[in-house]
Amino acid sequence: MMKEVALAIACGIACTAANAGDTLVEQVRQWRSEHEPALVRQLSEFAAIPSVAEDATGLDAMAHRLQAELSQRGFQAQLLQGGPGVPALVYGEFNAPGAKRTVVFYAHYDGQPVNRAEWEADPFAPVLRGAPNPKAPPVDPGNLRPPFNPEWRLFGRAVSDDKSSITAFLAAFDALKALGRAPSVNIKVFWEGEEELGSPHLADLLRRNRSLLTADLWLIGDGPMHQSRRPTLYFGARGMIGVKATVYGPLRPLHSGHYGNWVPNPAYQAAELVMDLRAPDGSIRVPGFDRDVRPLTTAERESIAALPPVEPSLKREFGIAQGEGSDGLTASTMRPALNVVGLQAGGPGRAIPATAEVSLDFRLVPDQTPERVRERVEKRLQDLGWTVLQAEPDEATRSSKSKLVKLDWGPGYPGYRADMTQPASRAVLATAQRAAAGPVAVLPMMGGSVPIYLFTQILDVPVIGLPIANHDNNQHAANENARLQNLWDGIETYSAMLGELNW
Amino acid sequence: MMKEVALAIACGIACTAANAGDTLVEQVRQWRSEHEPALVRQLSEFAAIPSVAEDATGLDAMAHRLQAELSQRGFQAQLLQGGPGVPALVYGEFNAPGAKRTVVFYAHYDGQPVNRAEWEADPFAPVLRGAPNPKAPPVDPGNLRPPFNPEWRLFGRAVSDDKSSITAFLAAFDALKALGRAPSVNIKVFWEGEEELGSPHLADLLRRNRSLLTADLWLIGDGPMHQSRRPTLYFGARGMIGVKATVYGPLRPLHSGHYGNWVPNPAYQAAELVMDLRAPDGSIRVPGFDRDVRPLTTAERESIAALPPVEPSLKREFGIAQGEGSDGLTASTMRPALNVVGLQAGGPGRAIPATAEVSLDFRLVPDQTPERVRERVEKRLQDLGWTVLQAEPDEATRSSKSKLVKLDWGPGYPGYRADMTQPASRAVLATAQRAAAGPVAVLPMMGGSVPIYLFTQILDVPVIGLPIANHDNNQHAANENARLQNLWDGIETYSAMLGELNW
Repeated sequence: MMKEVALAIACGIACTAANAGDTLVEQVRQWRSEHEPALVRQLSEFAAIPSVAEDATGLDAMAHRLQAELSQRGFQAQLLQGGPGVPALVYGEFNAPGAKRTVVFYAHYDGQPVNRAEWEADPFAPVLRGAPNPKAPPVDPGNLRPPFNPEWRLFGRAVSDDKSSITAFLAAFDALKALGRAPSVNIKVFWEGEEELGSPHLADLLRRNRSLLTADLWLIGDGPMHQSRRPTLYFGARGMIGVKATVYGPLRPLHSGHYGNWVPNPAYQAAELVMDLRAPDGSIRVPGFDRDVRPLTTAERESIAALPPVEPSLKREFGIAQGEGSDGLTASTMRPALNVVGLQAGGPGRAIPATAEVSLDFRLVPDQTPERVRERVEKRLQDLGWTVLQAEPDEATRSSKSKLVKLDWGPGYPGYRADMTQPASRAVLATAQRAAAGPVAVLPMMGGSVPIYLFTQILDVPVIGLPIANHDNNQHAANENARLQNLWDGIETYSAMLGELNW
Repeated sequence: MMKEVALAIACGIACTAANAGDTLVEQVRQWRSEHEPALVRQLSEFAAIPSVAEDATGLDAMAHRLQAELSQRGFQAQLLQGGPGVPALVYGEFNAPGAKRTVVFYAHYDGQPVNRAEWEADPFAPVLRGAPNPKAPPVDPGNLRPPFNPEWRLFGRAVSDDKSSITAFLAAFDALKALGRAPSVNIKVFWEGEEELGSPHLADLLRRNRSLLTADLWLIGDGPMHQSRRPTLYFGARGMIGVKATVYGPLRPLHSGHYGNWVPNPAYQAAELVMDLRAPDGSIRVPGFDRDVRPLTTAERESIAALPPVEPSLKREFGIAQGEGSDGLTASTMRPALNVVGLQAGGPGRAIPATAEVSLDFRLVPDQTPERVRERVEKRLQDLGWTVLQAEPDEATRSSKSKLVKLDWGPGYPGYRADMTQPASRAVLATAQRAAAGPVAVLPMMGGSVPIYLFTQILDVPVIGLPIANHDNNQHAANENARLQNLWDGIETYSAMLGELNW
């Protein structure tokens, strides 16, 4: 306290000097406290660019903006093109004199699609609010002097998934420069533009740019932190594959009174399909589905056991009475999952609908593959009497087959878990612990998906997750937000990885 | 043929004279053939008035228009008010000199709600088309000379449910007058304005106007004809009750990767709820549900057996491979039904939704009641571990109870089957057969619902259904339509009931 007061008296608000006895992270904290308005403005500007799959112009604008941000900082920056209509990949290099290791910093600059009707405000006009509730009144940072209340949140699409990580990375780089500190590693930046689509062109990009991407480690700035708000590392992530199932009934909606009991009802069959595939405890009713599930190692089990319990507070936060299975959150997300993410059938009238849609989302674990999941799910449905189609059925098919379902599989990828005991893993963990000056939450695998497997499979390099977003950020839903303290903590963590990581 | 040619030569197109040897129905047919443009115009004008529950102004305009139509024809007409916000009931009386029986003609002037996005054209700007396909090019009747092609169809909301019946009734009355024929019965008209809402104020209206409504028979001009297109009588109808079930998950949508397998998913539970209540063969998984089902009589079973088979052609028409159960259409609609008429959960992102909605529609048969159905369904769900709510749960409830479902029950009413052997039944059947000069489709009960039980329960009077709409009219769905031949046949049937019915 005395030191802070003394600094404030000696330097005033614009002071960037730091006490020579401070750690790097303490010096970065001081720098950040003097730059809070500019940092919030930077993140707001990024989030105001509508870089979502349905907006090619927004994606392009974001890619160019990020390239410029890197170039201004002395990076060799370029846009790697994946083909017509594919959002560009933002790539940058910055070599540190004398560094022997090269680290690639990954994040994605695209956001999830938005359903504007569900948002409290325009998802691309970011608003700072005083509380996690999106109905909380806005705060105008232009009228306030820092330090800002660290519980304030900035609301907007992609603000935390992943534009916070990008902002934290750039800020950490700026802080090191302001403090006169050279990076401890050579830096490569890899910012993707179609992660929320399932990264359909990523493998090709990695293969074509293999020599450019030579490195000793990838750090993935995606995903939320542990719910305890401890600094978090994850050593893997579940994979995923989504499928939209369309179930077919009569050619046109029919009066539910005159035909109910005789004409098959696709909305009912959609419910049947869901129950054909999943049990109430979350287990997946597909024979052989778990055959490729790799058991957890002792180190993985121990790291889960060492996590602080978050379930009681999450139950309150989410308003749920209990979890689906009998184990805790992290243990349950080590298993494959089948989520029903959408149901759609019928309209305002009382009719047997012509079609019903079910959107399913499979989360995979090593060593499952999307291809085998797809095969087994289709086999299961066929065994239960479903006719599985790849395209819209014609009238002859509809008139001759019962239980018709069209499956539109999205792109997918497998899950991944790295070796937590390899040298790069130990170095990252030690650096994170030193920066945090306390315990770090170590997850063997994140429940959410990032296409980590590609980096390891194609580039044969260790990959570790370094998330900074608050877990309660409404990621993938309306009213996504970023908590300021998470951004501040993220800047410190990134500065440690840029300035102190070595092995 | 000779007679028709002679008539055409003698009278030209505007001739209303009829051959003295013709039956009443033949004379009415001749009259109709000379008035086709005016009849189509009349129905179009009715259908252009948006008399649907969400449009109070449209309902009011329709009620006043119908009152005026009756007054112009010499009826004592009035609007019976059911209370603030309740659409008026259109009532009219016309006494025939010497008639000993009084018949009430029921229809409803309200239509089902519309989802404009699903319609090929504005549902309240009726369009005549040359085919049942709503994409068929429009036909402009103003440019054509009658006779019109009887397969043409007029598209628009309520055009056949029930505005065709109202048009046919008025036309039959006009035809009798033009032919100089007095009605054989005293006529009362009872045109309701909230049938599609489940007739919530009908009982009260009937009780308050009991003396006004004294009669020997009600004829119900609602519902579709048998699929064979034979003239149709039905001696009852299934009852109904709808319920919207809202299933609750987390307070806000959550990332399906980070939380899938731990946070309960309401979209999944919605599927579970559907399967908790209904088996794939259509049977209802609610203990005691069938306890109140009255067996069919011998006469009822015989009338079903005498129906021409329509299932093969309907399977082609609807594009379905087979019926849900093992019996035919009419036999299957003699049982209670549980229809899933709506499913809604999730949005464009990959999230565990906060809530999911299932709209269910129960069709009831004598002697089931909505009250007992409701009790048994709620008991069933409670027995399976559901917490059944009547109102939105607060956070304390959400945090303490699993499998939360709010049930919003709509208004409902029981089913009804009349005695097919009573004198009024026999007289109506004989009149219909004479008018048709051929077999009539006799249904013990219609699959769809009309609140017949009220008339019998409150007024203690026989009730028989006299539908004229084509079965393939898209009733209760988008692109509702009326086939011209059905309107023409309906005018003949109504003229027989107005001019020849007696017992």
